[in-house]
Amino acid sequence: MIDLDRRSVVLAGGSAVAAAALGVPVRAQTPVRKVGYAIVGLGGYGLGVIIPQFKNCQHSRLVALVSGDAAKARRVAAEYGVPDRSLYNYQNYDSIRDNPDIDVVYVCLPVAMHAEYTIRAAKAGKHVLCEKPMAVSAAECESMIAACKQAGKKLMIGYRCHFEENNLEAIRCARAGDIGKLRYFRSEHGFVAGNPNSWRLKKAMSGGGSLMDIGIYALQAARYMTGEEPISVYATERTDRNDPRFREVEDMIEFELEFPSGVLASCMSMYSANQNHILLMGEKGRIELEPGTSYAGNRLWVGKGRENEVRPPPGPGATQWAGQLDHMAQCVLTGREPIVPGEEGLRDLRIIEAIYQSARERRRVVLRT
Amino acid sequence: MIDLDRRSVVLAGGSAVAAAALGVPVRAQTPVRKVGYAIVGLGGYGLGVIIPQFKNCQHSRLVALVSGDAAKARRVAAEYGVPDRSLYNYQNYDSIRDNPDIDVVYVCLPVAMHAEYTIRAAKAGKHVLCEKPMAVSAAECESMIAACKQAGKKLMIGYRCHFEENNLEAIRCARAGDIGKLRYFRSEHGFVAGNPNSWRLKKAMSGGGSLMDIGIYALQAARYMTGEEPISVYATERTDRNDPRFREVEDMIEFELEFPSGVLASCMSMYSANQNHILLMGEKGRIELEPGTSYAGNRLWVGKGRENEVRPPPGPGATQWAGQLDHMAQCVLTGREPIVPGEEGLRDLRIIEAIYQSARERRRVVLRT
Repeated sequence: MIDLDRRSVVLAGGSAVAAAALGVPVRAQTPVRKVGYAIVGLGGYGLGVIIPQFKNCQHSRLVALVSGDAAKARRVAAEYGVPDRSLYNYQNYDSIRDNPDIDVVYVCLPVAMHAEYTIRAAKAGKHVLCEKPMAVSAAECESMIAACKQAGKKLMIGYRCHFEENNLEAIRCARAGDIGKLRYFRSEHGFVAGNPNSWRLKKAMSGGGSLMDIGIYALQAARYMTGEEPISVYATERTDRNDPRFREVEDMIEFELEFPSGVLASCMSMYSANQNHILLMGEKGRIELEPGTSYAGNRLWVGKGRENEVRPPPGPGATQWAGQLDHMAQCVLTGREPIVPGEEGLRDLRIIEAIYQSARERRRVVLRT
Repeated sequence: MIDLDRRSVVLAGGSAVAAAALGVPVRAQTPVRKVGYAIVGLGGYGLGVIIPQFKNCQHSRLVALVSGDAAKARRVAAEYGVPDRSLYNYQNYDSIRDNPDIDVVYVCLPVAMHAEYTIRAAKAGKHVLCEKPMAVSAAECESMIAACKQAGKKLMIGYRCHFEENNLEAIRCARAGDIGKLRYFRSEHGFVAGNPNSWRLKKAMSGGGSLMDIGIYALQAARYMTGEEPISVYATERTDRNDPRFREVEDMIEFELEFPSGVLASCMSMYSANQNHILLMGEKGRIELEPGTSYAGNRLWVGKGRENEVRPPPGPGATQWAGQLDHMAQCVLTGREPIVPGEEGLRDLRIIEAIYQSARERRRVVLRT
């Protein structure tokens, strides 16, 4: 495997000779093309989490930035070796079409902006990796899928846990029958939302509260751990509307999913306490993760209780994000479809809409199959 | 504290002199009257669990047995020093009224027999300790309460966890605000029902499936951990009716309770996998028990996760059952009301009926307050 340093590649315009001159080891015969990413949105996730991950990638490199803050963009560009010509703002964003370095646009914006910036990227002829939740509505998801399809471009959703080794091993154990027939799933995900002015707490930007943020991890886990699609939902919301953080979006929401096999899933998300837990119960035992979907330090137990901690084999990438970025890169390079395409994001949004409807109407909502 | 050996006291008819002659230490000045119990039902719980506990009691002694199996009753009587004159069957049960040794009747029968044998005991002038669930319906509970009230006798339900040190410490921590404002509770309780011919699996005897058995621990815990009464329930049942064990009663049932403070409780019981877990989440941390309601080996954690295991102070008795038996004995001796009276059992049955109704009608059921 070539372990090119990302920055040297960018500086050298991908020249293996220049990279070698910088002392970076190169397998000379097969200069692998790294797929070029434009990061849209230099917020906490795009800047703080994603951009530092390119150094762990084998097939992906950072080539462009899109930000409303020109000074910040220049600062980040200097640090990560992105050329000035590849800095964009939200006005000239569509001109990414003229930048051949950019293969994939990674949309790391507030949720309400996902649809617009995905569709504009597709129209500019770029593949899209879009953060989760995919959009604020299923209708938006459908537009995004249609736009990428029409442009002949791939669309992947940033479900990093599909590349996280503990979750992958948990799924493998569930499918292998390690805990017998599956019966029950539960997951709680929560963190303490601090700043009342955060975009997460503005409904116009986020589309919703904890469910549209940390809650989607519980929903996703219910689906990937069981391998099934829910047939109905029932949800209850609990929010202190006098809390300045929760004037617009929900704090706590509990939702139950019924699956065709008979498995029940009970999930909860909240913005007022920390929790990160996944439990899958079968007739012969259980698979438990706690934390289950953290950036680091996830732990996995398989057995009757917590007596048997499992150390999973390495995931597909050096980190869950490297695995995710390189998966999309390989899809671009080989023509394969991403394992978590737009349709996966759409499925979540359809369920999320039903969850909100159930909580609003205080009744069970049947999902269209 | 006097630590009389139960058997010697029974053999000697309660005579301190006779007991002393047998080498048992006696505090001569204050010969404490031990409250006499008749155990009704020599099944797994009455014979296997309760009867051996009198040796751990300070205020309770075994004085009579009621069983449909005369040979078994004689065998048990011989082992535990119960005199022949204090052996009864279900036909001559009412003649317990003529036995002054019997203060309390402990009903350890299948659930469908609780009401009859409680009411007959009250009519015979005896106090009653009745196993949980109290009866197969709230209406039966009301009749039992009325009968005991009319007879001027105490009625207590066998909620042993109210005398279990880990649960007591968990409740204390919750009330003391150790985890801040309470938000969310959950509990799963299950075991593997084996014998399809067990009375537990016959609806006419049990009144229901896992909810009417192991599930009541989850329901109870939701109530005593929050200290609140639920205002609504929503429930979903999942049972393989082709499984010979589950022709008549439910296997898995999940139920959500909404509490007035805003706390949500998500509970599940099942007869097809082992599970014994209680979790109370507050804004500042959580209180967790696993196992939470076992006969032995319960564990308690209080904090952010499981980093801080708590060793609780001793409970009121040498064991949870001794604490329970002696509490009823002290109520009899002092005239106090039991902390878990018939009304407590009635509350559970009203909720259980609403849970079954919700599962049947697939809708949220509001509880009368």
